[in-house]
Amino acid sequence: MFDLIAFDADDTLWHNETLFQATAREFATLLSSHHPPEWIQERLFATEMKNLRHFGYGIKGFTLSMIETAVELTEGRVTGAEIKAILGWGHAMLQAPIALLDGVGETVAALAREHRLMLLTKGDLFDQESKLARSGLGEHFSAVEIVSEKNARTYATIMARHRLTPARFLMVGNSLRSDILPVLEAGAAAVHIPYVTTWAHEQVGEDAMAGRAFVTLASIRDLPAWLAAVR
Amino acid sequence: MFDLIAFDADDTLWHNETLFQATAREFATLLSSHHPPEWIQERLFATEMKNLRHFGYGIKGFTLSMIETAVELTEGRVTGAEIKAILGWGHAMLQAPIALLDGVGETVAALAREHRLMLLTKGDLFDQESKLARSGLGEHFSAVEIVSEKNARTYATIMARHRLTPARFLMVGNSLRSDILPVLEAGAAAVHIPYVTTWAHEQVGEDAMAGRAFVTLASIRDLPAWLAAVR
Repeated sequence: MFDLIAFDADDTLWHNETLFQATAREFATLLSSHHPPEWIQERLFATEMKNLRHFGYGIKGFTLSMIETAVELTEGRVTGAEIKAILGWGHAMLQAPIALLDGVGETVAALAREHRLMLLTKGDLFDQESKLARSGLGEHFSAVEIVSEKNARTYATIMARHRLTPARFLMVGNSLRSDILPVLEAGAAAVHIPYVTTWAHEQVGEDAMAGRAFVTLASIRDLPAWLAAVR
Repeated sequence: MFDLIAFDADDTLWHNETLFQATAREFATLLSSHHPPEWIQERLFATEMKNLRHFGYGIKGFTLSMIETAVELTEGRVTGAEIKAILGWGHAMLQAPIALLDGVGETVAALAREHRLMLLTKGDLFDQESKLARSGLGEHFSAVEIVSEKNARTYATIMARHRLTPARFLMVGNSLRSDILPVLEAGAAAVHIPYVTTWAHEQVGEDAMAGRAFVTLASIRDLPAWLAAVR
C-alpha cells in the first residue's frame, strides 16, 4: 500500500524533549535566587519563541536562549560561573547518549526488510546527522531528509524529489503539528504515535484535528500489525 | 560539457568570512583589558576548532564559542553586559544583509538561462536557507543542497542523488579544501575563485594542490567565457 514509510526522529525514534525539559528545570534552579522557577521557565520559552525565526530549532539555539534569558532575568548580574554551567549543559545535550524509545530498534529493523524507510526530521542539520549516526539505526533508512521546518510544502517537495505519489507515502511521528497535519494537507497518510510529553511549541488544539483522518497508535510496536491490516 | 554547475555560497556568491573576522576583532577589543587582541583571537579560534565536532559550522556555534572564550579568558569575571554584547553580535550576524560579491547577480542570472545550476553549501541549515532567501538568487537554482561537511563522499552522494555523471559535474567555489580538492577526488571538475581572505580552518598547503587539475579564475565574471571556451 505504501511505497515508502518516513519516520520523524526526535520523540518518535529516540527521547529528546525530556532532555530539553530536564535542562530547563536545571536552568530554573540555577536562577532560583532571582525568580520563581515557573516564571523563569516561562521567560525561557518566550525567549526561545522570539529567537526561533533567527535560530531555527536545536540545542545551540536553545543554549543561546538560556544565556540570553539568564542575562535578562538577573539584570546583567549573571556570573561567569553561571554562564559556564549553561554552556556545559549545551555541550552535554549535544553529546548525550541516544536513548531509543521502547521497541524502536527491533521494529525499524523488521520494517526495513519489507519497506523502503526514510528518516525525515526537522532541526539542526549537524546535530540530527550526529544523532542518527550514534543511534545505530542509519543502515535501515534508504533516505535521510533533514529540513528546517515541516509544512505541507516541505512534504510536497520531498515527495517530488523522491518521485513518490502522496497516496502511497506514509509519515510516522509524534507531533500533530509537524508530522500529521501538514502530511494530510499534502495528500499523504500519517500515523500518530504520541510521546510522553509534547513541547509547547508543537501543541495544537483539538479543534485543529477535527475531521482529519489519521491513525493513532500507542507504540511503534503496533505499526507492523497496522500495516499488515491496511495492506 | 557540463550537465550541472554547482556553486558554493559563502565567499563565493556573497561575503561571509569578512563578517566573522570583523566580529572576532570586536570580540578581541571587548576583552582587550584582559589580554592582547592577537592572543584573544588565537584562543577564540582554538575554542572554535575544539567545538567544531560538536557544533558544526555556523554563526550559532561561533557565538557560543565567543561566550566560552570570554568566560575562560576573564577567569569567570566576564560581566552580563559583555555577554549581552556578544549575544547581540550573534543576532546581528544572523540578520546581516546579504552582500553579493561583484558580478554575482548578473552572472548567475545569465548562466541560469543556459545551464542547470545548484547551490551546494555547507553549514547551518536554517541560516543558509535564510541567506539564500534573502540573497534574491533562489530562482536561479534548480536544486539546493546544504550539507554538514564537504568531502569526496558528500559530493559522490549528491551526484548520485541527482543522477549526475562526475565527468559532467562542475563545482565553483572559493575554498580549496571544501570546493576543489574533494570534488577532484570524486572525479568531477572544479573552478576555484579565491575570496579576498580565507578562514584559517579552510586553508590548505600548496603541496596538497600539486598535480591537481583545476582552473582558477579571478572573478565569477570570467566564468561564462571559460565555459564557452571549454565547451
